[in-house]
Amino acid sequence: MQWKTITIVGVGLLGGSIGLCCRYTGIAARVVGLVRRPQSIKECVEAGAVDYATTDPGEAIRESELVILCTPIGQMVSVVKTMLPYLQKGTIITDVGSVKWPVVKQLEPLISRANGYFVGAHPMAGSEKTGVANARAELFRGAVCVITPTTKTNPAALCNVKSFWQALGATTLEMPPYIHDRLAAYGSHLPHVTAVSLVRTVLNGKRNQQEYLCASGFRDSTRVASSSDQMWCDILATNNKNVIRAIDDFIRELRRFRTAIAKGDRRAIGRFLNKAKQQRDNWCLLKEKNSVATYFTPLQQGAQIKIDYGEEQSPNCTQQLM
Amino acid sequence: MQWKTITIVGVGLLGGSIGLCCRYTGIAARVVGLVRRPQSIKECVEAGAVDYATTDPGEAIRESELVILCTPIGQMVSVVKTMLPYLQKGTIITDVGSVKWPVVKQLEPLISRANGYFVGAHPMAGSEKTGVANARAELFRGAVCVITPTTKTNPAALCNVKSFWQALGATTLEMPPYIHDRLAAYGSHLPHVTAVSLVRTVLNGKRNQQEYLCASGFRDSTRVASSSDQMWCDILATNNKNVIRAIDDFIRELRRFRTAIAKGDRRAIGRFLNKAKQQRDNWCLLKEKNSVATYFTPLQQGAQIKIDYGEEQSPNCTQQLM
Repeated sequence: MQWKTITIVGVGLLGGSIGLCCRYTGIAARVVGLVRRPQSIKECVEAGAVDYATTDPGEAIRESELVILCTPIGQMVSVVKTMLPYLQKGTIITDVGSVKWPVVKQLEPLISRANGYFVGAHPMAGSEKTGVANARAELFRGAVCVITPTTKTNPAALCNVKSFWQALGATTLEMPPYIHDRLAAYGSHLPHVTAVSLVRTVLNGKRNQQEYLCASGFRDSTRVASSSDQMWCDILATNNKNVIRAIDDFIRELRRFRTAIAKGDRRAIGRFLNKAKQQRDNWCLLKEKNSVATYFTPLQQGAQIKIDYGEEQSPNCTQQLM
Repeated sequence: MQWKTITIVGVGLLGGSIGLCCRYTGIAARVVGLVRRPQSIKECVEAGAVDYATTDPGEAIRESELVILCTPIGQMVSVVKTMLPYLQKGTIITDVGSVKWPVVKQLEPLISRANGYFVGAHPMAGSEKTGVANARAELFRGAVCVITPTTKTNPAALCNVKSFWQALGATTLEMPPYIHDRLAAYGSHLPHVTAVSLVRTVLNGKRNQQEYLCASGFRDSTRVASSSDQMWCDILATNNKNVIRAIDDFIRELRRFRTAIAKGDRRAIGRFLNKAKQQRDNWCLLKEKNSVATYFTPLQQGAQIKIDYGEEQSPNCTQQLM
């Protein structure tokens, strides 16, 4: 399908990349950006990320069929409130937030009361770089985009949001929001926490010339620690219960490895290293396969992964958005 | 200077890259490879990494002026013992081992008694990929190569080894072997331990579809976990006292971060993230500056970083090589 007008709220790395891809592929006839600072208007228009940008919520969404929230998650509720009075009946709102249950829980009823439809989404793509200047039309190509419907989600809106992400080159994967948050805590938030702790442990200024003995292993292991600190502060505070569980599992695993190293037990150390190498190499093969599959699929088709969660589990994240 | 014959012992990723660069730049008139398996002879000659390869220690080093040990550190002592009867007086032996004090302590007296000179070295460059097929002539360009002389090191041999690494494009940095081991434990071995623990915590098969919620952050944070497990088993067991100290510092730092996250204390979380971002961004600037400086320096000149360790500290690594 082609959208007449889509609105991107917050035109940074992710919003800008969505805009570039929408304009490049013609998914939308018109891409409008809602920005906070007046000086951002020129910047995102010049980057080619939007056809038109404004700081006025009414102007930004009055004609919109699809609104994509790309602000930090801590700003989503307040920015949605400013837009609701201007929302057309049936407009679909989606987002790119890295934490889903607290976002969905608050936005779903708000938007529903205004006769719009909310469908939560999280494209698993990004960079430690920020801002529209680093946006890339192909950012979502080959990425997984998790879509988090609830029992109240409108089926047509869900279908349209899935098609939208597939048109951007992503593979969509549906799961309940609280399951997303648990998996993201391990696959994304925990690597962030360990990268930050690694930088702080190694580059603490206590050892002369330490910085010269950090090479590409350190560089890659800590890349994400150079990301936006404000954005990550929101994520870690909002998903804290799941993140703590992941940290505790990690410390347990690290302590087991430490014991083998302390004993100088080569067989035990070897087992740790070998299992991790196998697990990661298998994961790389899976990624490669998916990425290749998407690469050879025409942009408008995308793909969908089918999943089975077995028995329903209850949400464990009760953290409020600000 | 130009070397007449240099010998590379173990022609894998590092040995192969040294060979390619020596042949490409003409640093040596002849590059000989000593390999363990007969089938490696053809492989490393075809890769262009050596002029000639053999499994015979005598043949490999009889005419050699410079021998570079590129085997796993656990094999260095035994391979050196097989070569010593054929060593020319005054031949220089150096290595690329990731742990220095146990290597230097054992090889220095052995080689000295055979009228050769040993100078320990550790080029801070590598890859998770292994084997001569992944070797690259430019692997050491812009890298730091740590040289670890002792009070017994021959000054002319030290000077020649430094020149050799500089000719390969590396910046040399001198420090005592036990200081190298302490710094490498933090800058290189700790990131390896955390990457392995991260893979084992995240990809343990306990959560359905977890692998789809691991994206580029996870990929880069864990890259080194795909490295040779045998090589890393040697490194972690040999430098275990320093590695344990680094792990304990890391767990302490991680626990502090955990407390801030558990409390949902946004100001404290923000401070952790912001400090780490600053520290890493500063490190990247330093790397970039050094790398650019080396890039524009003619290959034969290289550079040297001057250091001051203040008061002498005593070695804390007493682990034996096998």
